[in-house]
Amino acid sequence: MAQATIGNSEFDRDTAVVPRGDGVYEAELSAGWTIVQAVNGGYLLAVLGRALGRALPHPDPFSITAHYLTASQPGPAVIRTQVARAGRTLSTGQASLYQRDENGAEVERIRVLASYGDLDALADDVRTSAKPPAMPPREHCLSTADAPESAAPFRGSTAIVDRIDLRLDPATSGWAVGAPSGRGEMRGWFGLADGRDPDPLSLLLAVDALPPTGFDLGLAGWVPTVELTVHVRARPAPGPLRVAIVTRNLAGGFLEEDAEVWDAEDRLVAQSRQLARAAS
Amino acid sequence: MAQATIGNSEFDRDTAVVPRGDGVYEAELSAGWTIVQAVNGGYLLAVLGRALGRALPHPDPFSITAHYLTASQPGPAVIRTQVARAGRTLSTGQASLYQRDENGAEVERIRVLASYGDLDALADDVRTSAKPPAMPPREHCLSTADAPESAAPFRGSTAIVDRIDLRLDPATSGWAVGAPSGRGEMRGWFGLADGRDPDPLSLLLAVDALPPTGFDLGLAGWVPTVELTVHVRARPAPGPLRVAIVTRNLAGGFLEEDAEVWDAEDRLVAQSRQLARAAS
Repeated sequence: MAQATIGNSEFDRDTAVVPRGDGVYEAELSAGWTIVQAVNGGYLLAVLGRALGRALPHPDPFSITAHYLTASQPGPAVIRTQVARAGRTLSTGQASLYQRDENGAEVERIRVLASYGDLDALADDVRTSAKPPAMPPREHCLSTADAPESAAPFRGSTAIVDRIDLRLDPATSGWAVGAPSGRGEMRGWFGLADGRDPDPLSLLLAVDALPPTGFDLGLAGWVPTVELTVHVRARPAPGPLRVAIVTRNLAGGFLEEDAEVWDAEDRLVAQSRQLARAAS
Repeated sequence: MAQATIGNSEFDRDTAVVPRGDGVYEAELSAGWTIVQAVNGGYLLAVLGRALGRALPHPDPFSITAHYLTASQPGPAVIRTQVARAGRTLSTGQASLYQRDENGAEVERIRVLASYGDLDALADDVRTSAKPPAMPPREHCLSTADAPESAAPFRGSTAIVDRIDLRLDPATSGWAVGAPSGRGEMRGWFGLADGRDPDPLSLLLAVDALPPTGFDLGLAGWVPTVELTVHVRARPAPGPLRVAIVTRNLAGGFLEEDAEVWDAEDRLVAQSRQLARAAS
């Protein structure tokens, strides 16, 4: 298969939005980005992020926050956007994604608030000394596509495994064989399976596509996202991304996940944090 | 002066909101929480947070995100709230704060999206091992109220200095004498000047009340907040808070500030991140 390109790839087709006027967009949520039947939250954020990039005068999400209200389903969805402020260098808006329930009533799935700008208009300087995560080269990491059948949630109904090319750092993969480190870390190399290079929208997927850090803390259950905020800080260079996620505070039935995404040129291109519920 | 209490303090009076029906609240932004003429963003978030706590069926902000659209001014303000979803353990809503410009037209200052819950309903367990920041005891830290006149922005028009009791770690105070560490760190003991103990709403102030980490990176100018997200993770115990803020990524004219807030019982009670603009 020829390498997919930005604008012509599975990810682009499955996050496409069709404008219907007045800030309304239609989307078709794909079943291809599900994890154990739940539609991946980063994929959903990318769909909403694409709609906001159309609705706002600036193209790129600088800071985007999603609150996940009800469980999205594969199938048709409507996104309603609203511009809060259109400034010279930044604009702010919100978007809500709706689907119809079994009775045909509209149900809000996700609400997003975001400020957009133009990454290409930013100076190229980096004035801090943060370093990419220490992790083995890609070829020494563990491909989730090769994970054994027993390593749920990677197999079975988890369609996203076929759409992404994820190689986990063995140091954060012990949970797959019943030996979580207890440190609350998850690291891996991330790419799209069809070879499409990263762009700001696919970074919204990358921050939420690794197994939950809860697995590394010994949690067995899934950890549904309450809220996810992503800062996109630079347009990523072509090539694989490194994603490092850490949890410092699992308490009272909730935990945060902090992600950093580094591009192939060792630039910190995205930072995210989510608040998730630790299923008991 | 007798020690102020939660519900009867400068902070409570200055963040009060008066319901006008239909989810609308009136507030009077105080000139007492300004930093060089700008109304402090954490104080503003607390005002909006108080309104949302009234509008939603749950009392405490679990995750609250503010986008700062235009510069707030001391004086009257109107807050319009909207409930997005009212669930059993969490509810989600949004709020916008408006003021009138010189022509009497309403201008939106801040838009907030948040999920609320009940902190007292959470289990008390902490299942991770994060430790409070290493910093000297309070009596060995530097009181901003005692800062020299030359140490702008602490003096002059910065009224907030009289409302908070902030003691900076000397290791992150070198910038005040022209010797920033370059590490992008800011740490201090935080309390309210009238002795009021912390609560979830005052945590929204605490995360944004220290001098900007940019000062420790050698930036001279102010760093206006684009977006601020706070996770409140536990009701804080009485007594002083420790706040530790770090910036890892100053690039392209923007930087993030990550704050952790620890209470007197060594519990991580809040985590926040903001995206700010580095004034050139």
